[in-house]
Amino acid sequence: MKPSNLNISPVSKEMANALREKLDQKAKPIRSLGKMEDIALRIGLIQNTLTPQLNKPTMFTVASDHHVCEEGVSPCPTKMTWQQCLNFLELGGGIGLFCKMYGFDLKVVDAGVDFDFAPHPRLINAKVRKGSRNILHEHAMTMKECMEAIENGRKMVRESAKEGVNVVGFGEMGIGNTTPASALLSIFTKTDIKDCVGPGSGLDSNGVSHKANVITQAFEKHGISEDPIENLARFGGLEIATICGGMLEAAAQKMVIITDGFITTSALLVASEIYKEVLDYAFFSHQSDEQGHCLMIDHMQGEPILNMSFRLGEGTGAACCYPIIKGSVTMLNEMTTFEEAQVFNTATAKVAAFESH
Amino acid sequence: MKPSNLNISPVSKEMANALREKLDQKAKPIRSLGKMEDIALRIGLIQNTLTPQLNKPTMFTVASDHHVCEEGVSPCPTKMTWQQCLNFLELGGGIGLFCKMYGFDLKVVDAGVDFDFAPHPRLINAKVRKGSRNILHEHAMTMKECMEAIENGRKMVRESAKEGVNVVGFGEMGIGNTTPASALLSIFTKTDIKDCVGPGSGLDSNGVSHKANVITQAFEKHGISEDPIENLARFGGLEIATICGGMLEAAAQKMVIITDGFITTSALLVASEIYKEVLDYAFFSHQSDEQGHCLMIDHMQGEPILNMSFRLGEGTGAACCYPIIKGSVTMLNEMTTFEEAQVFNTATAKVAAFESH
Repeated sequence: MKPSNLNISPVSKEMANALREKLDQKAKPIRSLGKMEDIALRIGLIQNTLTPQLNKPTMFTVASDHHVCEEGVSPCPTKMTWQQCLNFLELGGGIGLFCKMYGFDLKVVDAGVDFDFAPHPRLINAKVRKGSRNILHEHAMTMKECMEAIENGRKMVRESAKEGVNVVGFGEMGIGNTTPASALLSIFTKTDIKDCVGPGSGLDSNGVSHKANVITQAFEKHGISEDPIENLARFGGLEIATICGGMLEAAAQKMVIITDGFITTSALLVASEIYKEVLDYAFFSHQSDEQGHCLMIDHMQGEPILNMSFRLGEGTGAACCYPIIKGSVTMLNEMTTFEEAQVFNTATAKVAAFESH
Repeated sequence: MKPSNLNISPVSKEMANALREKLDQKAKPIRSLGKMEDIALRIGLIQNTLTPQLNKPTMFTVASDHHVCEEGVSPCPTKMTWQQCLNFLELGGGIGLFCKMYGFDLKVVDAGVDFDFAPHPRLINAKVRKGSRNILHEHAMTMKECMEAIENGRKMVRESAKEGVNVVGFGEMGIGNTTPASALLSIFTKTDIKDCVGPGSGLDSNGVSHKANVITQAFEKHGISEDPIENLARFGGLEIATICGGMLEAAAQKMVIITDGFITTSALLVASEIYKEVLDYAFFSHQSDEQGHCLMIDHMQGEPILNMSFRLGEGTGAACCYPIIKGSVTMLNEMTTFEEAQVFNTATAKVAAFESH
């Protein structure tokens, strides 16, 4: 099954040589700004221009509860999900602060929180139901609910695109959501579940084993499908489905997509199983300390921008890497060339002197 | 030999527990902001306060020429040193752009450039002589010249401290300066010179071997001293000595010191041989692609903030990591606590839920 009316093209490589040449004319040894040059080049390709622009960066912090918490897969009480959402709405918590600091417009998205929020200018109501179901006994979502969540994610991103946004970060809040993310990692990378689970927000090693057991039992009960969205419905979560939809739409809209930690990267993993072209638009903000995160990023052949030992989620890593992304694009657009700087006389001499070995 | 009237204390650990407790009250799982928490804590210790402030961040990009270039140790013509300095003075080049972007006041310091600069508001004249001597034949500096460069570095930092600066980044510009930096690395870490040299701004493998040979011959000719400043004078460079002095003074003034790539880190290596306490004040902005850089950082047991495959120098890595440093301090000062956010009812429950395993 696939979302309807979704058209994701791979990025055009048309400008690749011209972008490379533009970068090589900057007053520096060739490729000496390393990953920043790669980022600038990729964003040039996404926008198919030598002068890409980053407009109205927006962070979607998508929240949901998970009834699998009944099985003790998280050390945190589930009410922290809604309490933290209220905190984020007032720009509190990690993501509220970092959005202020690094220039993101924050949207808190209720994809399935077990709470009734009052309307708020930063709140997007995309609630499908109050919490994904307990995967030990039932599918997390029906296919209808899962498709609804995907469409909700698509809609929120489509609307931001209409407002001129072309950079979207994704974060999440959902006590218990490392369980569905671990399950999806195991399924799509065919990795033993024991290597896919970690402490999340603070489980001890017994807790981690228990989490793996719960997922193993769910796999046995529901079986694994050939269809990525079926697997998302069986073992995922409402915020993961919503983020997955958001990422797919962002790729269709040719936006820059910034992932965060283990959960949002699991959403990208599902999205890339549906349309692999989504990866052309995705930037891996950071490598977290949750062990499965590394497996996911490697599977998608991604290169994390930061490695800060974060394990918070919310979009905090996506926000923190943004100065690097912004700096990369600004470098491409504004850094002086050898010629402008009157460093050196002839192009030939320049190339001879700075050519990489 | 040691610089006179220099008093560097190790940072007080007095506030360590209070800082840890303050970080642990933030609305997030304990230590889930990883390296950002470490940075915030260290800056709290440096300033001996729970509410550290970063004031007037200043980048000293220190330039010098190296007559060892006569031996063909760099693929670049030496006039690029002064040409790039002129570029930086107008906020061109990598460091000019990144200082603008990330909020640094840029000072271009002439420690020994083979050129006569006209006065400029961003230029600090700290010229000892036009270029460090060719180490294949002579000591790079006399001890008198070396001490003068160290004192020049101290003076520029002392003056910035008087103006209220408490964060200093160090960068450099000097065609040929990976040669002295490699020599210093080899001496102070007792590493074979072959493992200390790299391509710099673009040498091929023959060029890299040749660079190692030149250094080996210089070692044989001048011998290695027990005194770090003697070694700096024999094998170093004027910008390295000036930066070394600047870093020592910055530590004495209890400033936050931000290193850049291979060259500025070699200056810190020398500084730490003179007063190891300087390391309490130093932050390693990034791990470059120059192979010896990793050896240096490991030797000083540092942890690089970024890993962007930079090999440009100038201070570019120091500037790019600053949003992370600033974000860390802002997090310590401004991020909401569980209590402020009304997440959870009792401190006991909070601790139970979020305790690290």
